[in-house]
Amino acid sequence: MAGESVAALNDLPVKRPREEEEANGASVPTVSMETDGTEVPDSISAVIPGWFSEISPMWPGEAHSLKVEKILFQGKSDYQDVMVFQASDAPYSSTYGKVLVLDGVIQLTERDECAYQEMITHLPLCSIPNPKKVLVIGGGDGGVLREVARHSSVEQVDICEIDKMVVDVSKQFFPDVAIGYEDPRVTLHIGDGVAFLKAVPEGTYDAIIVDSSDPIGPAQELFEKPFFQSVARALRPGGVVCTQAESIWLHMHIIEDIVANCRHIFKGSVNYAWTTVPTYPSGVIGFMLCSTEGPHVDFKHPVNPIDAHESTTKSGRPLKFYNSEIHTAAFCLPSFAKRVIESKA
Amino acid sequence: MAGESVAALNDLPVKRPREEEEANGASVPTVSMETDGTEVPDSISAVIPGWFSEISPMWPGEAHSLKVEKILFQGKSDYQDVMVFQASDAPYSSTYGKVLVLDGVIQLTERDECAYQEMITHLPLCSIPNPKKVLVIGGGDGGVLREVARHSSVEQVDICEIDKMVVDVSKQFFPDVAIGYEDPRVTLHIGDGVAFLKAVPEGTYDAIIVDSSDPIGPAQELFEKPFFQSVARALRPGGVVCTQAESIWLHMHIIEDIVANCRHIFKGSVNYAWTTVPTYPSGVIGFMLCSTEGPHVDFKHPVNPIDAHESTTKSGRPLKFYNSEIHTAAFCLPSFAKRVIESKA
Repeated sequence: MAGESVAALNDLPVKRPREEEEANGASVPTVSMETDGTEVPDSISAVIPGWFSEISPMWPGEAHSLKVEKILFQGKSDYQDVMVFQASDAPYSSTYGKVLVLDGVIQLTERDECAYQEMITHLPLCSIPNPKKVLVIGGGDGGVLREVARHSSVEQVDICEIDKMVVDVSKQFFPDVAIGYEDPRVTLHIGDGVAFLKAVPEGTYDAIIVDSSDPIGPAQELFEKPFFQSVARALRPGGVVCTQAESIWLHMHIIEDIVANCRHIFKGSVNYAWTTVPTYPSGVIGFMLCSTEGPHVDFKHPVNPIDAHESTTKSGRPLKFYNSEIHTAAFCLPSFAKRVIESKA
Repeated sequence: MAGESVAALNDLPVKRPREEEEANGASVPTVSMETDGTEVPDSISAVIPGWFSEISPMWPGEAHSLKVEKILFQGKSDYQDVMVFQASDAPYSSTYGKVLVLDGVIQLTERDECAYQEMITHLPLCSIPNPKKVLVIGGGDGGVLREVARHSSVEQVDICEIDKMVVDVSKQFFPDVAIGYEDPRVTLHIGDGVAFLKAVPEGTYDAIIVDSSDPIGPAQELFEKPFFQSVARALRPGGVVCTQAESIWLHMHIIEDIVANCRHIFKGSVNYAWTTVPTYPSGVIGFMLCSTEGPHVDFKHPVNPIDAHESTTKSGRPLKFYNSEIHTAAFCLPSFAKRVIESKA
């Protein structure tokens, strides 16, 4: 294995904050040549020879690193740098497998993607009876689609992903994730989620899942009131939304704002949940779960449990992470987070 | 700030597996001189200049790194290398504060120690009525003692820590953790926990908390049948033990063995729980909770809730992490872990 040092930066980040990196004085990367002649970006993330390191102004002063076995893909889309690498095999524990990196930040690994995809999907869909129409914003890798497909009540799944390269790369390198696209109920729209949502007729969806990036840079819109208002408008009465909502350990100030915005806009239930994802910064990721005015939604107690029909995916793959117990547990917060979030009630 | 590159290795590791590192071909560190003339170990963990990186054969192929503001202490005890550093201030999120490192592995940070200390203590002590006699094995930093002290029913707390340097360093650099030693109910025994336990009269303790390191190297004994048998013997009927029990993401094979051993030895309840600790590998740590034959213990439903009297520490510090909801939630496992652990039943 060559000593690849790899990372990604670009001009129009959708997933992560390029402007912020530069504003914080991070060095602009140069490109070096590998011994085999392929170009490898040599950036702030390239701190351990042969390892990928994730350094970002979103989590200053800390970094998670994975040993690289082989770089499988490097590309630059209209929106971001896209990279796939194979993580090294590990003698004691199982490998992280293939890793998808956008703008230098890990989006998924084969080892732990189950936690994020299953939780962001089934927390909302198991909280309402018979979801029929579902919209996914972002989530171009297809993992959320794969999980939505477990719900036999679902008749229509729209996905709006801005970056076609993410879809193509996932289909090529992550077939167990991109399998979600094979479901005939799915329609893929390549485009801006904010614009897509504005064009949706009022009350269209039973559930909207926002598989978004961090709220610095272009994705900032997805955490602000106008976007949440569009989401609320696109949902039926008693419809539900689940959005990626950062880490209680790193971003309580962001979470406070999200909670305050959501309490203002969603007149049904407003709850915060979280789960473990080892390759996300601080090892956890949160979700904001809200419902519109209408039939009451008790997010903490799933009325549409999926455990019994967990093998309904085309691949027959059973749920690896989600179950009804961990659904309810996800809403139990550490005291430090509970105090802040409840203070916004 | 000088570009400190820091890590630790030693000859007689208690907390972590030196032999394993060498067996895996990790390079043996040399010592370099800083510009101010102080000695700084230059080891496998020194992968990012100015950063501390945690690399271990217990989690091969990945590493977590923290930016170092200043090294506050470096020493070599009879058992291990001991280091304290100040983590860098972060512009967005709060700092990890001071960090205690033993043999190159992070043991606690001021930022997230609350999660580990509160959970390993209150999961067992809130599961039985009126705990009176408590034994802590390991835990030399004093954090578990601080948490035990919240329980007004407790009359006697013995702690057996092998390394006096850990106690002294904690008292000097982590006063909010070592405050546990100020409680008059505490008796400190410097020595080997296994030997201490063998000398304890049968049925002495209501609860035993094993704040141990990983089961490779010398601490391996603390994960094996004879040790658990000594623990069971030292507990009263219906007494409880809580031991550090690794990560469901990294060490399911170790957890399987622990569960099998415990089911063999403890004739009461045997349960696995887990929590989030960002600076531990994979971001989670687990606990094995067992009770001896006698009055039934339902670990999942605390009978001795602490929320109401949470400010009984000498410092008046409220609980930051633990509450009764998160106690119950800690026993809800992801499906992949649940399947393995229940298969041992």
